[in-house]
Amino acid sequence: MPTVTIARNILANNDLIAAEIKQQLAARGLRALNLMSSPGAGKTTLLERTISLLRGRLAIGVVEGDLETSADAERIEAAGAQTVQINTRGTCHLEAHMIRDALMHLELASLDLLVIENVGNLVCPAGWNLGDDARVVIASTTEGDDKPAKYPGMFAVAQAMVVNKIDLLPYVDYDVAKVRRQALAINPQLRIFEVSCCTGEGLDAWCAWVTAFAHSASEE
Amino acid sequence: MPTVTIARNILANNDLIAAEIKQQLAARGLRALNLMSSPGAGKTTLLERTISLLRGRLAIGVVEGDLETSADAERIEAAGAQTVQINTRGTCHLEAHMIRDALMHLELASLDLLVIENVGNLVCPAGWNLGDDARVVIASTTEGDDKPAKYPGMFAVAQAMVVNKIDLLPYVDYDVAKVRRQALAINPQLRIFEVSCCTGEGLDAWCAWVTAFAHSASEE
Repeated sequence: MPTVTIARNILANNDLIAAEIKQQLAARGLRALNLMSSPGAGKTTLLERTISLLRGRLAIGVVEGDLETSADAERIEAAGAQTVQINTRGTCHLEAHMIRDALMHLELASLDLLVIENVGNLVCPAGWNLGDDARVVIASTTEGDDKPAKYPGMFAVAQAMVVNKIDLLPYVDYDVAKVRRQALAINPQLRIFEVSCCTGEGLDAWCAWVTAFAHSASEE
Repeated sequence: MPTVTIARNILANNDLIAAEIKQQLAARGLRALNLMSSPGAGKTTLLERTISLLRGRLAIGVVEGDLETSADAERIEAAGAQTVQINTRGTCHLEAHMIRDALMHLELASLDLLVIENVGNLVCPAGWNLGDDARVVIASTTEGDDKPAKYPGMFAVAQAMVVNKIDLLPYVDYDVAKVRRQALAINPQLRIFEVSCCTGEGLDAWCAWVTAFAHSASEE
């Protein structure tokens, strides 16, 4: 079956580049987060808030992945972070070679943490290693409380889950406890945060985790 | 480049099966809609409402696509429609061969319309012809008003766009006029509906369009 063989080669090649990226970042004591979710779950807004709240304490560099437009990179740059935009022009996920190219445009020496914002897609990005040290999946209270059960692959590869838009809970039919149960059944080690990027609720705990994660690099 | 060649062969093979499906349905005077959106934009809920509102007037058969679980098929069956669940087990979109297999489990002679609910993904399903006669993309007011510009491929292949969850407009930052402008810039022929599956607002116009679409088959 030539298809399978070639698909394996592509993934193996991706993993080689991912390993190089991980080594390159580790040599600088730099950790990388891979942020993934459905379109519109709030990846960019969470990043904007995180950058603002940690300004002066943690220098975050961002690689923005989108099919098209540089709108998100402009928002992140305005929030005060070094940013590179990748436009995948139709590809539904980021791949390691895209990250390798993007890193050439960041001043890594001035950073404390790298965040990669993946293409909005709750399926495909889970299968691609980007050389990151942890994956964060955002679940939004407006997208229904059945997502971990229906998209288990994404929740299985994540180290942390952010339940976003909790300010909208009074207006939607969403059971946070059910989502926690579903996600932990797939991935018992998952760290879970409940936040609202509008009201700021829960962002302190999230930012504390991000900061500890960034600093954990120097302990190795 | 063997990868490209094989990818083309896979797509060409998909298109052959899609053409067979289209012919099979046309021979029965049956039209098919392919319903696509991000995870949680409300495909299943819109379908539940549509089936209920048209009960006794339009017999709708449904093919449900999900990575995992039969939860959506159970909801659709409870709404009163013949349903087949496809679990793709990780594949991020439906393919024509899956539809061909699913159709063997539906009593096509008793149906007035076939609706295919694709996997929740605003990217990949746009590239796969399922033998359908029209594609509908659902945009939700909770997922941000930049989606047509950021995911243009999906909006380019659609005949209709449903802006769902308009009951939540007071609580979110979402400019419907901006979404209309973006979507029409990509696809000037797009029919646009604004609905709330909670309050029922806009569902009459949507159901009228679905009914006219189903009946248009017999005019050919």
